[in-house]
Amino acid sequence: MKTINVVVAGPRGRMGREAVSLVHNTEHFQLVAVIDRMNDGKSLSSVDGFTGIDVPIYTDAERCFQEVKPDVLIDLTTPEVGKKHAELALHYGVRPVVGTTGFTKEDLARLTELAEGKGIGAVIAPNFAVGAILMMKFAQMAAKYFTDVEIIELHHDQKLDAPSGTAVKTAELISMVRPSKKQGHPEEKETLQGARGATYDGIPIHSVRLPGLIAHQEVIFGGNGQALTIRHDSFNRASFMSGVKLSVETVMKLNTLVYGLENIIE
Amino acid sequence: MKTINVVVAGPRGRMGREAVSLVHNTEHFQLVAVIDRMNDGKSLSSVDGFTGIDVPIYTDAERCFQEVKPDVLIDLTTPEVGKKHAELALHYGVRPVVGTTGFTKEDLARLTELAEGKGIGAVIAPNFAVGAILMMKFAQMAAKYFTDVEIIELHHDQKLDAPSGTAVKTAELISMVRPSKKQGHPEEKETLQGARGATYDGIPIHSVRLPGLIAHQEVIFGGNGQALTIRHDSFNRASFMSGVKLSVETVMKLNTLVYGLENIIE
Amino acid sequence: MKTINVVVAGPRGRMGREAVSLVHNTEHFQLVAVIDRMNDGKSLSSVDGFTGIDVPIYTDAERCFQEVKPDVLIDLTTPEVGKKHAELALHYGVRPVVGTTGFTKEDLARLTELAEGKGIGAVIAPNFAVGAILMMKFAQMAAKYFTDVEIIELHHDQKLDAPSGTAVKTAELISMVRPSKKQGHPEEKETLQGARGATYDGIPIHSVRLPGLIAHQEVIFGGNGQALTIRHDSFNRASFMSGVKLSVETVMKLNTLVYGLENIIE
Amino acid sequence: MKTINVVVAGPRGRMGREAVSLVHNTEHFQLVAVIDRMNDGKSLSSVDGFTGIDVPIYTDAERCFQEVKPDVLIDLTTPEVGKKHAELALHYGVRPVVGTTGFTKEDLARLTELAEGKGIGAVIAPNFAVGAILMMKFAQMAAKYFTDVEIIELHHDQKLDAPSGTAVKTAELISMVRPSKKQGHPEEKETLQGARGATYDGIPIHSVRLPGLIAHQEVIFGGNGQALTIRHDSFNRASFMSGVKLSVETVMKLNTLVYGLENIIE
Repeated sequence: MKTINVVVAGPRGRMGREAVSLVHNTEHFQLVAVIDRMNDGKSLSSVDGFTGIDVPIYTDAERCFQEVKPDVLIDLTTPEVGKKHAELALHYGVRPVVGTTGFTKEDLARLTELAEGKGIGAVIAPNFAVGAILMMKFAQMAAKYFTDVEIIELHHDQKLDAPSGTAVKTAELISMVRPSKKQGHPEEKETLQGARGATYDGIPIHSVRLPGLIAHQEVIFGGNGQALTIRHDSFNRASFMSGVKLSVETVMKLNTLVYGLENIIE
Repeated sequence: MKTINVVVAGPRGRMGREAVSLVHNTEHFQLVAVIDRMNDGKSLSSVDGFTGIDVPIYTDAERCFQEVKPDVLIDLTTPEVGKKHAELALHYGVRPVVGTTGFTKEDLARLTELAEGKGIGAVIAPNFAVGAILMMKFAQMAAKYFTDVEIIELHHDQKLDAPSGTAVKTAELISMVRPSKKQGHPEEKETLQGARGATYDGIPIHSVRLPGLIAHQEVIFGGNGQALTIRHDSFNRASFMSGVKLSVETVMKLNTLVYGLENIIE
Repeated sequence: MKTINVVVAGPRGRMGREAVSLVHNTEHFQLVAVIDRMNDGKSLSSVDGFTGIDVPIYTDAERCFQEVKPDVLIDLTTPEVGKKHAELALHYGVRPVVGTTGFTKEDLARLTELAEGKGIGAVIAPNFAVGAILMMKFAQMAAKYFTDVEIIELHHDQKLDAPSGTAVKTAELISMVRPSKKQGHPEEKETLQGARGATYDGIPIHSVRLPGLIAHQEVIFGGNGQALTIRHDSFNRASFMSGVKLSVETVMKLNTLVYGLENIIE
Repeated sequence: MKTINVVVAGPRGRMGREAVSLVHNTEHFQLVAVIDRMNDGKSLSSVDGFTGIDVPIYTDAERCFQEVKPDVLIDLTTPEVGKKHAELALHYGVRPVVGTTGFTKEDLARLTELAEGKGIGAVIAPNFAVGAILMMKFAQMAAKYFTDVEIIELHHDQKLDAPSGTAVKTAELISMVRPSKKQGHPEEKETLQGARGATYDGIPIHSVRLPGLIAHQEVIFGGNGQALTIRHDSFNRASFMSGVKLSVETVMKLNTLVYGLENIIE
């Protein structure tokens, strides 16, 4: 497999650190530089936690792209920085793999035009956990055959909002393929309010919050003497790296921008 | 093991049928008669579904106890009949194992007195599923060490009320041993109402209703980098027979009335 | 939706009984006759357990097809009968939906030719549980992204062979899309023999046998801080009816033979 | 609640670090010193990762006990050091809570005598995960009522030995309370060798090894139309701290040595 030269932006961030480790440990990937707000010109190996990873640090992304000419940029920083870097990278013929949110339709249209003008790929994905993407995809497929489904998502008790974004997104995908319906017995009633959960287009969603848990979701389909359950457990942020790896490999074969990991998974 | 002679009341009912089958198939149990509303004097083997089980049918319980002198009566009929049979059985020195609800405190006090007067045992239990009883017992024990817990109960979608009686009973048992507390993040909020479920003394309960499912419950404890889950699946009404069997064996060693299967399980 | 006229073969068998009930209770299906070894010319309503279902019984399938001219034949009998009925049905322009095993490649080729000659559909499927088929399909899809997987299948303890046919079939489907590999640590060792399970092309399979259980399977994928689990629970034989229903609906739109439910599920 | 003064040995180790954090963050615990191999006389706050935790470091455990007179010593170091520290602590009237293995019967007898002579408590436990201890305890209790059980343990694929120590320990506890039996159908056979797992006194054990997983175990009981499942998930080493906390609180009320966390859990 041909080696892919990669630059990582934000190497000291929590996700950036994982990305550096991923690129460093993948045989056909080559880390060629990093982009950071400080330590311009130094070697990454001089920074705490990166012993032995001897690549140059650039504070100026533009200069990095000009001098290093990488194949791919991985950016898992912030919405503003991610957007700026994606545009700059495409301008210099570098394929961006960006994991931040906040791109508007206009942003995506402009970047798509830029990518197609250069004839290169770009991947922008708010969620890089391949397992979570597959769970949602399978749930949508199963909903064609099982019209009754409930979602249980379980997270640590520091999470403020319920239900989780992934649960709502899953319900959204399901409701795109099944006729709207009210589930449960027509005359069912709650003797304790809230027992039957929240509802998104007729799909009940239940949110569990417990210390010790991390991020988990079950989608349960029932019908005709059977149940089909799809469960994803995310144990730590390394779970995102499978999607980053897949994106780096895929972006090399694209000649346009793809938004959402689900669109590069078959 | 000494053989225990058993009479079953209501052999043609759904639960009664299972009880006849249980007694018939347990080596140290001996079915000696049945009590039914019809077919007085005939053999049970002449009734549809009981081929080969040749024991007499009595429509008069009193005469049955006098003539057959069984060790134990199993009654899984209706509250009124169960109550009447229990009293009559004790009067004739027959140990009742009754699986109906509706006994008042006064009923229990009177029957206890009767049992102790005769120096024999009696077991009355609204729920004979040993697995469900153990689940509740373990949940109560675990609650001393894990103060955060949520209950998920899952049933077929023909069930009208939510949450289930077992879920509420479980929460009740847990709340007896842990200090009352509000779980989850103090500032958590539902973006879709009901997501965090119903609450019983601070314990969230979630009710799933799907066709195909039968009767299931999970009690999940979380804390300090770990989770402890206790799950019971009831696949069919045979699940009650484990408790009936245990009760028949136990009632022979008692000299008072025990209410609730949890009190004969250690 | 246009009504589909259906004949069921073997109505008194366990699966046949479910099929009669399915057709009888589906609005756009119409039961028009049954084929059975006895009771020729009588009404099905005179047979035990079919009160109110007034359709003629034929012992001669050929005559049934000629006189009743149904759209579809459902056959869930035995391999020999199913094969004979499928051929006869196609000959008379009736679309067969057959749920038996034992068709050879030659059988399938001959029946395909027959179906295409008549310009009608035929569905032959050894497994009609839609949930199980989806589980296998999803497992195969996920294996492209997660190369490490184990299968746990759980059945009642009356099952003689381990692993189950479905578990082996699942492993087979997975091994078609992933490079062969040895899983686990290269130096792992069993201190108790058999702990790591059976292996099919490097995929560990574990068979659990317990009284009370019915038929369940979990396919667990692991990688990069995450796990993806696909589970199917089959609680009773009604689970096959979802696939029969789907097949009856689909066979009306086909003009060739389809083998395997997985090939009509998208 | 009265404040308990605690010394932690080995603060820079992975478990020691968690213990320092536990003591520091528990209101009624007070960290009064640490014992380490280096940095004698310095403040812990000067060591990387302990900013703001201003307690003295001792390299000499004996001097530490004499000068600081703590109530409790927490030692999660190595078998040799743990053994030495436990003895020394008891000698100076300090209650040891030790989480290492390797104590012989003679060691335990000698330390028990020492503890009772001083009239103080000591806790030595090879496993401090309260949830795992409860799982084993519940499994043993359930085995009295369900004689059929299988164990599935799931770990990351860097684990070398199968089955896990916890799985074997669980089977051992179960086999103490149930009559030895062969499970499954008497004529069951493996078409792929190993499918039915390893066996400990008739109890099948299945070991799953997948990247991404951490440490999980399920004990499944089956019988009479039902299943009872007890599952423990250990997501990170903080899971041990619940047991350390409980032990520190309990050791203050003891006047002898207790071996094994299961013996202080009711």
